[in-house]
Amino acid sequence: MPPTTSHVERHFSASATVRDLVIGMSDGLTVPFALAAGLSRAVPSPHVVITAGLAEIAAGAIAMGLGGFLAARGDAEHYSNEQAREISEVSEKPEIEAREITELLAEYGLTPQECEPLVAGLRRDPKRWVAFMMRFELGLESPEPGRAMRSALTIGGAYVAGGLIPLLPYALSQRNTTALLWSCLATLLSLLLFGYLKGRFAGVTELRARKSAVQTALIGGLAAVAAYAIARLLS
Amino acid sequence: MPPTTSHVERHFSASATVRDLVIGMSDGLTVPFALAAGLSRAVPSPHVVITAGLAEIAAGAIAMGLGGFLAARGDAEHYSNEQAREISEVSEKPEIEAREITELLAEYGLTPQECEPLVAGLRRDPKRWVAFMMRFELGLESPEPGRAMRSALTIGGAYVAGGLIPLLPYALSQRNTTALLWSCLATLLSLLLFGYLKGRFAGVTELRARKSAVQTALIGGLAAVAAYAIARLLS
Repeated sequence: MPPTTSHVERHFSASATVRDLVIGMSDGLTVPFALAAGLSRAVPSPHVVITAGLAEIAAGAIAMGLGGFLAARGDAEHYSNEQAREISEVSEKPEIEAREITELLAEYGLTPQECEPLVAGLRRDPKRWVAFMMRFELGLESPEPGRAMRSALTIGGAYVAGGLIPLLPYALSQRNTTALLWSCLATLLSLLLFGYLKGRFAGVTELRARKSAVQTALIGGLAAVAAYAIARLLS
Repeated sequence: MPPTTSHVERHFSASATVRDLVIGMSDGLTVPFALAAGLSRAVPSPHVVITAGLAEIAAGAIAMGLGGFLAARGDAEHYSNEQAREISEVSEKPEIEAREITELLAEYGLTPQECEPLVAGLRRDPKRWVAFMMRFELGLESPEPGRAMRSALTIGGAYVAGGLIPLLPYALSQRNTTALLWSCLATLLSLLLFGYLKGRFAGVTELRARKSAVQTALIGGLAAVAAYAIARLLS
């Protein structure tokens, strides 16, 4: 296999897992923290805060995890539906499919004559022709097997891991005000670290990774301030 | 512009907005409902349930909306970084880029001779050559302008709209048990309707759309049962 494509494929697969981790972790660090902060003023004891927080973590992890599962399975189904359609089109209407390639490449300034040898080459092997249409006409990547379950566990696990950090201080402290302070601190540090690692993983420069750290912390902070303000208005 | 590609592009853009709606709505219908259900047994009055629920909606909508904003902006940055790299490679190392096309197409059974006219045609116009590499080598679509803000508002708005449905009964009722019953009913109906529309929008058959309705309702139910069980264990 030529180096270019295997590199591209590795890139796609790694980024799918990283994206799942980021989806779960960024919401897990933010929403339970913001909910706990919001409730810490509205209710007297840390106990209700922890109850609400853990209930939220369970609901959020399951909803997001299963959502990821269905999304990945939907992608896989979409792929196999489109593949079935391409297979029948390639075998039943090869002239139309061949013209589609020419039309697609005309956008890049290519004449029908320049496309002809390519089209003739693809016609030799209908299987590879279908694979070509899937990637180049439809822009669809073949889904990895087992992706849906892995995606669900990654998103859900990251949500739980992220969500427990801001709740821990409420479990260790007798007073909500003290717990809130430690929860802010722990979450802020986690958000900064997470934002930084997220930036580094995206392959950006040191400066941009730091910017990503600050942005991520700001999102968590904004969400928490909004939740806090609403809970305070209501209580 | 040939019909094929404009069709593909429309498809991409519509599905991005639908995906945003689905992301926001499925979590918005599920998590606040599950949290409220979980808390309804743990705390005596609907007041705390509403406070926690609204705080969660605010936190969730902001966290998910801003998360979507940053994700879309990250995609746009990634696109322009890769584009800049392709531009410099096409102008500085055209031989290497030309070989990359041949290697890429070799996977589809094409010989270097069959690729030659295509490569020669692309070389005429470096701009279009770059566009070709972006789409066919890297599989990247040019991001729509304004996508990040639209994505944030769509996700956040859908989360708020979805989240208010299960909370409404707690605002209208004096007792948590009555409110929980109506909240279950309202949310179940909404999840079924939402799952059905989601399926129809994905262009699947009537039967599959109904399956999607049941799946979506099951996710919400599972998340709620987990949250309910945790809150009951703790209270």
